[in-house]
Amino acid sequence: MKLFKFIPILFCFVSFSQKEDSIALKKIYNYYLTKSKCYSNLEYLSTKIGGRLSGSPQAAQAVEWAKKAMYAAGADTVILQPCMVPHWVRGAKEKCNLISTKLKLNKALNCCALGNCIGTGAKGVNAQVIEIKSFEELELLGAKKMIEGKIVFYNVFFDQTHVRTGSAYGESVVYRGKGASYAARYGAVGSIVRSMTSVADDEPHTGNMNYDSTISKVKIPTIAISYKAADLLSESLKKDSELKVYIETHCQTLPDEPSFNVVGQITGTEKPNEFIIAGGHLDSWDNGQGAHDDGTGIVQSIEILEVYKLLSIKPKHSIRAVAFMNEENGLRGGEAYAKFAKQNNEKHLAALETDAGGYTPRGFGADTANGLYDLVVKWKTLFTPYFVERIQKDGGGADLIALEKMGVPCLSFEPDTQRYFDIHHTAADTFDKVNKRELELGSAAIGALIYLLDKYK
Amino acid sequence: MKLFKFIPILFCFVSFSQKEDSIALKKIYNYYLTKSKCYSNLEYLSTKIGGRLSGSPQAAQAVEWAKKAMYAAGADTVILQPCMVPHWVRGAKEKCNLISTKLKLNKALNCCALGNCIGTGAKGVNAQVIEIKSFEELELLGAKKMIEGKIVFYNVFFDQTHVRTGSAYGESVVYRGKGASYAARYGAVGSIVRSMTSVADDEPHTGNMNYDSTISKVKIPTIAISYKAADLLSESLKKDSELKVYIETHCQTLPDEPSFNVVGQITGTEKPNEFIIAGGHLDSWDNGQGAHDDGTGIVQSIEILEVYKLLSIKPKHSIRAVAFMNEENGLRGGEAYAKFAKQNNEKHLAALETDAGGYTPRGFGADTANGLYDLVVKWKTLFTPYFVERIQKDGGGADLIALEKMGVPCLSFEPDTQRYFDIHHTAADTFDKVNKRELELGSAAIGALIYLLDKYK
Repeated sequence: MKLFKFIPILFCFVSFSQKEDSIALKKIYNYYLTKSKCYSNLEYLSTKIGGRLSGSPQAAQAVEWAKKAMYAAGADTVILQPCMVPHWVRGAKEKCNLISTKLKLNKALNCCALGNCIGTGAKGVNAQVIEIKSFEELELLGAKKMIEGKIVFYNVFFDQTHVRTGSAYGESVVYRGKGASYAARYGAVGSIVRSMTSVADDEPHTGNMNYDSTISKVKIPTIAISYKAADLLSESLKKDSELKVYIETHCQTLPDEPSFNVVGQITGTEKPNEFIIAGGHLDSWDNGQGAHDDGTGIVQSIEILEVYKLLSIKPKHSIRAVAFMNEENGLRGGEAYAKFAKQNNEKHLAALETDAGGYTPRGFGADTANGLYDLVVKWKTLFTPYFVERIQKDGGGADLIALEKMGVPCLSFEPDTQRYFDIHHTAADTFDKVNKRELELGSAAIGALIYLLDKYK
Repeated sequence: MKLFKFIPILFCFVSFSQKEDSIALKKIYNYYLTKSKCYSNLEYLSTKIGGRLSGSPQAAQAVEWAKKAMYAAGADTVILQPCMVPHWVRGAKEKCNLISTKLKLNKALNCCALGNCIGTGAKGVNAQVIEIKSFEELELLGAKKMIEGKIVFYNVFFDQTHVRTGSAYGESVVYRGKGASYAARYGAVGSIVRSMTSVADDEPHTGNMNYDSTISKVKIPTIAISYKAADLLSESLKKDSELKVYIETHCQTLPDEPSFNVVGQITGTEKPNEFIIAGGHLDSWDNGQGAHDDGTGIVQSIEILEVYKLLSIKPKHSIRAVAFMNEENGLRGGEAYAKFAKQNNEKHLAALETDAGGYTPRGFGADTANGLYDLVVKWKTLFTPYFVERIQKDGGGADLIALEKMGVPCLSFEPDTQRYFDIHHTAADTFDKVNKRELELGSAAIGALIYLLDKYK
């Protein structure tokens, strides 16, 4: 009973500062929903520069553009952090033909080579196909010598029963990443994956793969085919188990290229060597415009700098928007950022990644390290009016792996992801797929969170 | 692309009945995310039947279609509840021309007559325009005789700072509903509204209006112009306050037509005269396909019947999917349903409306009457794994007004509505704007809620 006497006092205190924070958040949201430049920035990045794979001329253009956009958003300093990046090029359009004399079929399947894939050149690879549902099945058939000389077709469905689409992706992406090396271990001459997607259309979804020399030293061509093409191939195999597929790729891995992370900073007034950062990745796959992956993350990160102009304040700590290079096929930018932080003895209080699409915000993930989760979860009621409601113990992102290893507490922005895997890594990841308000609400949520972190850290 | 970690749905530390309910919900969700017919049903309704304003041949086709779809979904009984509906027809394409000799401008503005608008016929209305920002301003200028003989242009912006887009709509829609009568009271010869939309495009948004004889007995033509057209008109007025606008409409209000609500029922095993219902509205505006408004609500309501087949159970109470007729311009279906319920002495335990688009579910609204909110809020943790997180004290929908007046506790399905007012009441409200997974998640959430209501009521 007596404890209750304390509660109203405490509540009043919290209530006062919460009220102040509520007002700041309302200002931040009002700005982002009416005056934000994130949508026009994204339009430029997506439609004027477009797909920007590491090492490409477009990636270099994106670096120049990001530098300007960061200054325009209010950075007092923009740092270009050099890093050498892989330079894989797709080359001439890849081919995948389904050929069955029995079925009187010679059909081009919609396909794309996976990132890092070797080129077959004009001679291509022509072989029978064996459909596989799991690595366990591959192993069993491999032991029976049934894989040798064939093309392995990993026909693994994206599990639609996961409400978190990322869980379905996580389960199936292993076949894209390591499928070629496992198939090669058993003598396969090529491998095909069903596209990792939640929609039954004809778009092939690319993405990175790695030839893992601990599994096999042989590199075989490896491609993704669309959902519909995978259905057709699987159905055709039921009717003609001896059908063949012809794969032709013209990919090349050129020498590493110099590139950069772009880091826009507003230097802190009280603790300039303590950093709070928000970032996305500037590179994207070559086939689309890299709009949702991860143009939206880039423009949202840049926009955090606007908050301080808007509120006419200077942050206590240094605030950074980070455009990481080479998330898609190497993570060299994330590594370079961590190395740079170490060399300069920079203390990172928190690092947020936004790389799950520019959709309506649902919440944030936050590491438990250094009490970050406990701090962020306290702000839940501040975000409730903005429909940002899930604060989960699960922060970070691919670009933050190296920082996380150094003990930096990490955060992730968590939007609704129901539409993400419809267009992820395809030619359809274009600007028109991004809704202005959804994007702006994401910018506002991230901007507000960074503001609170700076205030309470 | 971010790193997605697999997060399993945990059943630990919950009571037996919660565990049982969790398992049922998982089954329901798995069904809706893999085998649901709601998307193909919507495709038929939207693309084969299309826009279906009350009294139109398409509305009659929709009645026949809904009857079949409800039987197919598992209804043991389908009732057609007769109701007389207004029969307004748009007629030949309306015109709105901006004419300024000073600016050398004679430009057709994208427009649509508002529902219930009178026809001007080929002679049209040609007059100077006065821009108005509020009814208060109208009154002030009206008192100064500055409205007489003019066309009133309600240039009221959709307030983008509302996170709930419905709040912005609520604020501006009054000018659509009553603007013509208020303008006529002060002698205006026509009225124009800026489209109620969150996107700066060139689509005009229709919607209902009413000539209110308590305000003015004079009926004047009234149209909506697109966001861009409203900008152009406003800018042009700044440069030439004497510019004219020509409005031509060919609308007619024909005699009322007989129509129907379609009610699909699975009769309860224990309390057949106690009802739990979920409904949407079968009619739609004529200009689009009525996909999000409210084809999605119709197919989601029909799908609740599938739950009982799926779980191989019979409900205790009678479960009804209701396709209400005439929500858009009369609410006659809602009134007929309530009358029918009264006549037959039916006891309604709960009534849910889904009429806010087929987007990712965010939560439910629930009336506090008869302890409904208290019951539903208890299930919050059951819905959390499915990202359905907002249970608000605020149920009902336009079709349920008459039932609510009779004391029936009402519910509303609350999806994300950021994209809703981009296409609401436009030619762009088409099937391709609906995302399959988002629609299915809505069906699952509603199906699960109805299941729990039947179990615990």
